[in-house]
Amino acid sequence: MEKLKKYVSVKDEDQFYHQGAVELLVFNFLLILTILTIWLFKNHRFRFLHETGGAMLYGLVMGLIIRYATKASDVESGTVYECEKLKSGPSTLLINITNQVYEYQYKREISHSNVNGHQGNAMLQKMTFDPSIFFNILLPPIIFHAGYSLKKRHFFRNLGSILTYAFLGTAISCVVIGLIMYGFVKAMVHIGQLEEWEFHFTDCLFFGSLMSATDPVTVLAIFHELHVDTDLYTLLFGESVLNDAVAIVLTYSISIYSPKENPNAFDAAAFFQSVGNFLGIFAGSFAMGSSYAVVTALISFMHLTKFTKLCEFPMLETGLFFLLSWSAFLSAEAAGLTGIVAVLFCGVTQAHYTYNNLSPDSKMRTKQLFEFMNFLAENVIFCYMGLALFTFQNHLFSPLFIFGAFVAVFVARACNIYPLSFLLNLGRKQKIPRNFQHMMMFSGLRGAIAFALAIRETESQPKQMMFTTALLIVFFTVWVFGGGTTPMLTWLQIRVGIDPDEDLKAEAASQSASNLDKNTTKAESAWLFRIWYGFDHKYLKPILTHAGPPLTMTLPEWCNPVARLLTSPSAYGDQLTDDGTDYIINNDELTENYESSAHIPVPAQDRTGSTQATGKEDILEGDLGLGGYKLQLEHTAGQPQMNSLA
Amino acid sequence: MEKLKKYVSVKDEDQFYHQGAVELLVFNFLLILTILTIWLFKNHRFRFLHETGGAMLYGLVMGLIIRYATKASDVESGTVYECEKLKSGPSTLLINITNQVYEYQYKREISHSNVNGHQGNAMLQKMTFDPSIFFNILLPPIIFHAGYSLKKRHFFRNLGSILTYAFLGTAISCVVIGLIMYGFVKAMVHIGQLEEWEFHFTDCLFFGSLMSATDPVTVLAIFHELHVDTDLYTLLFGESVLNDAVAIVLTYSISIYSPKENPNAFDAAAFFQSVGNFLGIFAGSFAMGSSYAVVTALISFMHLTKFTKLCEFPMLETGLFFLLSWSAFLSAEAAGLTGIVAVLFCGVTQAHYTYNNLSPDSKMRTKQLFEFMNFLAENVIFCYMGLALFTFQNHLFSPLFIFGAFVAVFVARACNIYPLSFLLNLGRKQKIPRNFQHMMMFSGLRGAIAFALAIRETESQPKQMMFTTALLIVFFTVWVFGGGTTPMLTWLQIRVGIDPDEDLKAEAASQSASNLDKNTTKAESAWLFRIWYGFDHKYLKPILTHAGPPLTMTLPEWCNPVARLLTSPSAYGDQLTDDGTDYIINNDELTENYESSAHIPVPAQDRTGSTQATGKEDILEGDLGLGGYKLQLEHTAGQPQMNSLA
Repeated sequence: MEKLKKYVSVKDEDQFYHQGAVELLVFNFLLILTILTIWLFKNHRFRFLHETGGAMLYGLVMGLIIRYATKASDVESGTVYECEKLKSGPSTLLINITNQVYEYQYKREISHSNVNGHQGNAMLQKMTFDPSIFFNILLPPIIFHAGYSLKKRHFFRNLGSILTYAFLGTAISCVVIGLIMYGFVKAMVHIGQLEEWEFHFTDCLFFGSLMSATDPVTVLAIFHELHVDTDLYTLLFGESVLNDAVAIVLTYSISIYSPKENPNAFDAAAFFQSVGNFLGIFAGSFAMGSSYAVVTALISFMHLTKFTKLCEFPMLETGLFFLLSWSAFLSAEAAGLTGIVAVLFCGVTQAHYTYNNLSPDSKMRTKQLFEFMNFLAENVIFCYMGLALFTFQNHLFSPLFIFGAFVAVFVARACNIYPLSFLLNLGRKQKIPRNFQHMMMFSGLRGAIAFALAIRETESQPKQMMFTTALLIVFFTVWVFGGGTTPMLTWLQIRVGIDPDEDLKAEAASQSASNLDKNTTKAESAWLFRIWYGFDHKYLKPILTHAGPPLTMTLPEWCNPVARLLTSPSAYGDQLTDDGTDYIINNDELTENYESSAHIPVPAQDRTGSTQATGKEDILEGDLGLGGYKLQLEHTAGQPQMNSLA
Repeated sequence: MEKLKKYVSVKDEDQFYHQGAVELLVFNFLLILTILTIWLFKNHRFRFLHETGGAMLYGLVMGLIIRYATKASDVESGTVYECEKLKSGPSTLLINITNQVYEYQYKREISHSNVNGHQGNAMLQKMTFDPSIFFNILLPPIIFHAGYSLKKRHFFRNLGSILTYAFLGTAISCVVIGLIMYGFVKAMVHIGQLEEWEFHFTDCLFFGSLMSATDPVTVLAIFHELHVDTDLYTLLFGESVLNDAVAIVLTYSISIYSPKENPNAFDAAAFFQSVGNFLGIFAGSFAMGSSYAVVTALISFMHLTKFTKLCEFPMLETGLFFLLSWSAFLSAEAAGLTGIVAVLFCGVTQAHYTYNNLSPDSKMRTKQLFEFMNFLAENVIFCYMGLALFTFQNHLFSPLFIFGAFVAVFVARACNIYPLSFLLNLGRKQKIPRNFQHMMMFSGLRGAIAFALAIRETESQPKQMMFTTALLIVFFTVWVFGGGTTPMLTWLQIRVGIDPDEDLKAEAASQSASNLDKNTTKAESAWLFRIWYGFDHKYLKPILTHAGPPLTMTLPEWCNPVARLLTSPSAYGDQLTDDGTDYIINNDELTENYESSAHIPVPAQDRTGSTQATGKEDILEGDLGLGGYKLQLEHTAGQPQMNSLA
């Protein structure tokens, strides 16, 4: 008997393994379908349903099938058992059932009202996987990829505007949504759909902050495919990437805002604590992410005399790069900071420093690896969002709340884009035209981040209402706005089919034609950026990469011994052979920035240098993914020394 | 109050997220350390500790730290609670504790004797992750990579020997270990260390089968680095790869062998059922894996008139390739077959067919992706094995059992290699020399598969004893045998530093010098392989890839309409322009096989064709990873048409 029983238990366990396989298989199947669909769409140049929309649609259908084609397998699981001996929920529970000890693991706390929702269907339960998988495994590659493929040049040119939209805009959006939702909640309380104590103003703000995270995926993929105007692309890309980070930290800060007494009253101390939290977490995460990237850069740059450089082992290099970047995320999470913010800035810093040190093989490997991981993670998330509509078991559909949320989201987007664009245009030399503003308004899609923030806590009724609503808004915006992107671009008469090369050539032409005008435009964000750029170029780049002037040139003379130690032999060698020209050329863009702000016409010889530097920067950017600057490479082919550096 | 409580619970949950991050961070940290160590070792050409050994060592140290530096956080979890109302363990348990409902998820069944081991330390519990992660996520990439990078040419040349070692050898090893262990178990019962009923002969066989899985990783990495004799390399690689598959299916078959009455008596019906199970599962898994690969090949080959080929979107192609290969594993698991076997043969088939259809970009992408995943998964597993020695909480050290296992493993390896080699040498024209046999004996390392099979079930005391023993044997063999590989090669005077090109050139030379002798050697496995090769070359390759002769040539005339439909336009085109030479050249190796078995000297013109075909095959193999056949490319540079096909 003993024997037989054991075998039965082995078989049961195997059942469990197979179940794990079945769930993964469902996702694999959905992804395969999505890929085949994308292929089909690409063939027919069909742009009304983007791949993310397709993935969501397939997820939805699959969710429907799982929901209604599988039956409740486990009848007992809906029952609540009493246990008087326990005082609190331990993380592991051992239970003696008919003389067999079973181990149970703590999953979560359930409010009494949801007990019925947890009934039965094991398949449904398995399909709604742990939100921590989202945060620890699926989101990091997406955000890292965004940071790693950032077009630095265009980004920094519009830095002021992007920061304004991302910080101020997100804050505005959060408050506006919060206020409007509070109005709707009051109305719902008034007509008796909601209890007064269930929904506070902080909850509304919480909803506002999570709904303020706009998703770059769908729109930008279409923009990229259509080669939409680079400035519009950069504004939207920069805004949506940074805005995710801001929204996440904001959500967290609001969730730990706990006023002492009346939760509806304003508590100044708690408010300022939240603001402090926001700033502290943001800065801490930024520092964490950047420092990991700096460590990676240092390791990949190491050139001890006895050592082969790491770049001679592309596999190790790629592995280290990958692991350190992921560690940036995990360390930030472990330290109570925000991993997403850390990994974003880690990506930006990696692209800025480490990328220069990688072997050509590793450059391609890392690029392709992150591209691939980004592609998979993105589609898994969108499939899962589709699935969640039917497999998630505690939805709470509240028509009034959903209607309110739709109104709030659009009003908030309008309050974000139009007033801020107006203000920015006061300062910008190159205005943000009206049709760009409309397009930005239209591109306020909600996606993975909003969903991930909403699913993080779904136990209380307000949170369930928020989750259901957020999910519906994601569906609507991805399908309707995502699908409407192409017609909207036509309707707003926004330039498409722009060859980045042409753009840059035109720029170079206008640069030589009207130096002054162009320079002032370019210097738009210079006041923010100049000091940093100087410091970076003079000290950080030489220490962390093979590019830049040798430190012996940039540091004061008394630092020479240290400088010589830290300078890469290659930079030093170039310096010696090229007799200083390298320094001048590399430093040129900085010079230009200074000059442009001072409105002094520059000598023709320096101009040439500047074009060279431009070319070099663009080679990097082209390599980094989004652009295709191949012509630009020919452009600089005349300067072999520049190419070898880049 | 309600409010406050909610926030507390949110914070608790965040605590949980951060814990997930901490565990992942520990692994990341260990992997980073391992990579840095490998780098260091590569610099010093230090081969006495391989990277896997290093990973295991770091894991061990980390396990020690976690074990003794963290304290029991959760005092209550050691207590067993009674629950009379429950009849069986539901998969989800809802418990009401002080008016709060908590959800618990079923983890496993625990035998009464292990309850104490489950006490306390949450960190330790978290570090011992779910065995299903091993099977579903970490093992597939390793096994797939092994199949994908298989050197087909050398493999098939030694197919007979490899199959003998893998099937017959593993069976011998399993039985020998089982018998020896049964002796030791009897002795342990005799001196009172074990109860009679606890350990049956089937348990001994179970242990025997899981300990029969040899690990290719460590030894082959060193072999590859040192360029050891290609035939020895192929024998060991082929044996260890196939042997894993055999051992897994064998373990499973034994675990479901349940004799009706006395578990110690031999039950013929149950035995034959087990044998039937073995054959059925093996064949089913093989079919499942191959058919997924065939589907991939078909999709990547599709050339509908209106469609762009998939290979114009390398990202989609890579994604599809990856997902379908993984699905082969998951489908097999879900269907109750063995995923490892499926994914192994999927890899082999993908390399044989799909690889030919991929775009050059995708060829590199898939190769690098699988290489990278293999690298990471391998090191994670070895780190985890190190960790498990201290973090796993139910070890059962039994000195006599461990001693017995060491003896049994070595005796069994000897009973496997020497007698089989003797038998094989009777049939082989090119004998397996004595020093090769010693080296194969020495290379019987146990690794990931043995560990994974042992950790799958660790509830009963015999299983715990097995797990602990398996872990110790893995440690010993990886460190001692893995470290001793280089000295052993020197001591046995085995050729190292062999350039595969040189090897092939020498072969080509000897081929022209003594055609007959070489051909008979090559034809060693021909009788097994000939029919398959003909079928594959004539029908499968043309249908599934762009290579091979057009079907219109190989099919009977009345099939022409179908043949024309299925033939790739490119193959057809080549055919038309090259006027048949393509067919002859491609078909040459087959011709050679027929000829060699018939011992007819071949005309000189055909010989040249054969060398070309050799070159072509090797380009593929070189691309696939292990070799570096660059010279070979130059070799065939004179035949542009061949290159364009390869």
